[in-house]
Amino acid sequence: MHAKREKWANNFSEWFNEVIETAGILDVRYPVKGLYVWLPYGFKIRRLVTELIREILYRYDHEEVLFPILIPETEFAKEAQHIKGFEDQVYWVTHGGLDELNVKLVLRPTSETAFYPMFALWIRSHADMPLKIFQIGSVFRYETKHTRPLIRLREITTFKEAHTAHASYEDAERQVKEAIAIYKEFFDRLAIPYSICRRPDWDKFPGAEYTVAFDTIFPDGRTLQIATVHNLAQNFSKTFEITFENIKGEQEYAYQTCYGISDRVIASLIALHGDDRGLILVPEVSPIQVVIVPIWYKDKKEEITERCFEIKEKLEKIGIRAHVDDREKIRPGAKFYEWELKGIPVRIEIGPKDFEENTITVCRRDTLEKIRINADELEKIKDIFAEIYKNLKNRAHEEFNKRISFVDDIEEAKKCIKEKKVVRAFWCGEEECGKEIEDKVEASLLGILLEGSRSAEGMKCVNCKKEAKYEIQIARTY
Amino acid sequence: MHAKREKWANNFSEWFNEVIETAGILDVRYPVKGLYVWLPYGFKIRRLVTELIREILYRYDHEEVLFPILIPETEFAKEAQHIKGFEDQVYWVTHGGLDELNVKLVLRPTSETAFYPMFALWIRSHADMPLKIFQIGSVFRYETKHTRPLIRLREITTFKEAHTAHASYEDAERQVKEAIAIYKEFFDRLAIPYSICRRPDWDKFPGAEYTVAFDTIFPDGRTLQIATVHNLAQNFSKTFEITFENIKGEQEYAYQTCYGISDRVIASLIALHGDDRGLILVPEVSPIQVVIVPIWYKDKKEEITERCFEIKEKLEKIGIRAHVDDREKIRPGAKFYEWELKGIPVRIEIGPKDFEENTITVCRRDTLEKIRINADELEKIKDIFAEIYKNLKNRAHEEFNKRISFVDDIEEAKKCIKEKKVVRAFWCGEEECGKEIEDKVEASLLGILLEGSRSAEGMKCVNCKKEAKYEIQIARTY
Repeated sequence: MHAKREKWANNFSEWFNEVIETAGILDVRYPVKGLYVWLPYGFKIRRLVTELIREILYRYDHEEVLFPILIPETEFAKEAQHIKGFEDQVYWVTHGGLDELNVKLVLRPTSETAFYPMFALWIRSHADMPLKIFQIGSVFRYETKHTRPLIRLREITTFKEAHTAHASYEDAERQVKEAIAIYKEFFDRLAIPYSICRRPDWDKFPGAEYTVAFDTIFPDGRTLQIATVHNLAQNFSKTFEITFENIKGEQEYAYQTCYGISDRVIASLIALHGDDRGLILVPEVSPIQVVIVPIWYKDKKEEITERCFEIKEKLEKIGIRAHVDDREKIRPGAKFYEWELKGIPVRIEIGPKDFEENTITVCRRDTLEKIRINADELEKIKDIFAEIYKNLKNRAHEEFNKRISFVDDIEEAKKCIKEKKVVRAFWCGEEECGKEIEDKVEASLLGILLEGSRSAEGMKCVNCKKEAKYEIQIARTY
Repeated sequence: MHAKREKWANNFSEWFNEVIETAGILDVRYPVKGLYVWLPYGFKIRRLVTELIREILYRYDHEEVLFPILIPETEFAKEAQHIKGFEDQVYWVTHGGLDELNVKLVLRPTSETAFYPMFALWIRSHADMPLKIFQIGSVFRYETKHTRPLIRLREITTFKEAHTAHASYEDAERQVKEAIAIYKEFFDRLAIPYSICRRPDWDKFPGAEYTVAFDTIFPDGRTLQIATVHNLAQNFSKTFEITFENIKGEQEYAYQTCYGISDRVIASLIALHGDDRGLILVPEVSPIQVVIVPIWYKDKKEEITERCFEIKEKLEKIGIRAHVDDREKIRPGAKFYEWELKGIPVRIEIGPKDFEENTITVCRRDTLEKIRINADELEKIKDIFAEIYKNLKNRAHEEFNKRISFVDDIEEAKKCIKEKKVVRAFWCGEEECGKEIEDKVEASLLGILLEGSRSAEGMKCVNCKKEAKYEIQIARTY
């Protein structure tokens, strides 16, 4: 059994905006378009999500740094493709106090041009590499499109970007694979399904050799890019003079990669697992994992409350984040409503019968199932967390797969896109044909599927009917 | 016994800049004046320090939020004193892409004008208060003075600001006291000595009713403001229309406070406890608390290394952050040098004799004392941490007290300031006289001492010789 997902499915955009406000994630009333305020509850989720990516990156030997937000125009403009890709969407700082600045400053839209002048100072020899560093902070984009909380922002407050340098192209290629493994683990732990595509050349990161992207699919059938991994080859190292002495004693330009995620991770976490009652959080990143609600009964009030706090303490001892909602003037029903909206994975109720019989009533947020267990068997809650995670993951993957249509005709592709499906088809690999596909179906060619793709052997291109080379994914995107 | 503090004492500025670079705290070569890069080791210290202030603020029921970095000119300019105080030192964003913005944006120099329009939306009734929130993030100041790493920055990357609202002036006053208690605990745990002064009216925060400041004293005799607490009374609530229904059912303007700390905390941590060998970190915020260095000896190499990792595991089990430095090509002496520079509080050496006799050799960074203890008594390391903390705290307090001169004559005050002392004296309380004092001694009147001050009863003003009202502190400041 699950709660309804009617509004979620049929009116997703409204559901999403509503839940972000009512669950206390963001306040969208900040007086500048595209800028939002993280509210305490939202901030706590954000903190757990950033701690999760940190944990994984640390394990893969990445070190954390923090660079300035301001980049001088002189550095920013060095890499031709890069400036071309970003010049329409950067904020310019032109004045300090009442003075006009000699060198204008850019609010970083991403930090290649901040990191790489320092890389040039840090890297001397092949022994200094691989260099793997990351930071978490704000980046800025002057978005002219429609802005959306957590999805399309003018200040992306949760931008995790990693930058690496390597002594060979092969090692940079290995790093691309490592980055993909990192993001797979990260999204898997958040129960977020994804496809992994190599973006077509006309849609790669400005300055990259190639771009690999993770996309998920939202309930409205549009895909959301949730992570990108770029092999920069020597494009930036040549611009920023990042050279090293190789094992032969010769100077060589470093090989680089970079990869990033953003607030969109949290958008996905909210969007993919919710229902008409609100959020459903994966236990690992839920600020409160168990909320305990006393069901007071006449003369037993104090004892029941006391029991609730005992249970809370015991839960905390076994590493579970628990909270007792003992607010006086609010009825249990109203409390249930509020915690369901906020997506707390498990609710424990303790009423007079539980009190007498030393039991607790456990209610799962995902299935709304209620069971009574012995109050001494709290370890079972961990099993329930595991089941919730598994259930959320399975459900999200099923939804994801249901939204994908396999198509071998361009008209059919167009029809599927209209029906809010994501399309998989075969492609010849020619840029001209690829752009024609995009025009015909009025959607984006997300790229060549890198994992779980079918063999293109003997298949025809969905558009030109020539020999197919790759399986591609096509979708309307955010 | 302690290592020498000659350079530290006599050439502090050079010592400070050097240690920040060589210990891996910041890279100062970022190509914009006043902006620096947090290196991995510095970032780890920063993370522990921010986690410490978080822990304390959470305990005092503060909730964490995150506001945008950009503030529209329309909000920023609303409070007259505030804009006057900051207009010379804010960065202006005037363009987005190739467009000129309709409303210019300020890079926040502090966030009152970002928070308070939202407070006006959040606060309806006395029941919504006290509202106590904080954030940690970057603020920007277009500094025209000489910039210095961690001390005077154009991007202050570690700005913790708390903002509160209250239903009565008394409750705001109580909050000021709470904020002072919070910072006292924070600085005490970092073993940083401080004085607490109420700033003179001509030096208060722009828009505040009054400002309380924490100052520490650097080895060069200059004071550094390390925290401020402001009672804003109703100044901002009147500007931003933050009203509430009070218990009588009438509309009233909220009473507000705000308080902040910055990167200067980390500057002080480094500056006050160091010596000529480098940093000495308080164990609580040391990224590595114990570094274990194997002293390899002929055929015992593998066993000794193995023993080191066993000790590391055991230390981690009792909650100590430990690291084994088993780098092959570096001699133990070079390792000692490096970890001393980085300020790791305890080094453990394990050599062949230790291996045979199941002992470890423990070396304290603060005193350089070496003792051998049984390898099964690792809990003792915690006692050593406590001793190190106590020793650092006592030493810093002694230094602090030694730098203060009690003076009752203005010429003597001037002489003391020239001799790099901080001066304490009595004052009549008149603004004109106070400014005269500042002119005569060529230093700043930091304000009225709020804690540990002597009684002014029967005393004369150091300058005008009229009846004294307060004990004040005078110093050259950063």
